[in-house]
Amino acid sequence: MTGPRELKVIGVIASELTSLADAPMQGAEGAPDAWLEVDAAFADALHGIEAGDELLVITWFHRADRAVLQTRPRSDPRNPMTGVFATRSPDRPNPLGLHPVTVRAVDGRRLRVGPIEAIDGTPVVDIKPVLK
Amino acid sequence: MTGPRELKVIGVIASELTSLADAPMQGAEGAPDAWLEVDAAFADALHGIEAGDELLVITWFHRADRAVLQTRPRSDPRNPMTGVFATRSPDRPNPLGLHPVTVRAVDGRRLRVGPIEAIDGTPVVDIKPVLK
Repeated sequence: MTGPRELKVIGVIASELTSLADAPMQGAEGAPDAWLEVDAAFADALHGIEAGDELLVITWFHRADRAVLQTRPRSDPRNPMTGVFATRSPDRPNPLGLHPVTVRAVDGRRLRVGPIEAIDGTPVVDIKPVLK
Repeated sequence: MTGPRELKVIGVIASELTSLADAPMQGAEGAPDAWLEVDAAFADALHGIEAGDELLVITWFHRADRAVLQTRPRSDPRNPMTGVFATRSPDRPNPLGLHPVTVRAVDGRRLRVGPIEAIDGTPVVDIKPVLK
């Protein structure tokens, strides 16, 4: 049963990045482009998105540890322990990932987007335009 | 039972805005400051947040219609029907709200933040720093 705050998976990332070890920490740090494949049930919600648009893709870091409340930023032991709400750590109570991307191409309900550091198979839960 | 993509409410907005009719559509459109009250269970995750920080607050629009896939932007009948993923409509499959705010003050596990258009009682699901 779908609970009141149960996220629906609206699409998935298809990327050449297949392991967390290979993924850069942020999209601007050398991440590749990838396909965002939207589920057929949500295709109508893409209407109006065009190549060149700047979007925020919201993902669900399905491999995250939701019990983590503090971490050392960028996994660097020289950094002090910091609350996860003051960091972009994927380990956090609700492991939402926020990815600013440019739309390179639209192919039906597949969007070519990038750069994006999410690995292959990452669930997508929302897409929003960047406000100018 | 908590499902694999069930969001935890980590805090709540306490605002003078009490009705959707009074709320501006975006924070920069005259919204007030508000308190973000973090639940005691997640207080450790705030460590390191200070007055002056720029944050993204992610809320759950608990009154949204999750079945809406297309809408007219800004509820203006002159605008064409547009996919919700190309708009900031609160009505969308996963009604996540994204609010860029400045921290005005920190009082224990309460953050004074603004401007923010979320109404009183809006659940908060994540807090992230803005990347420079």
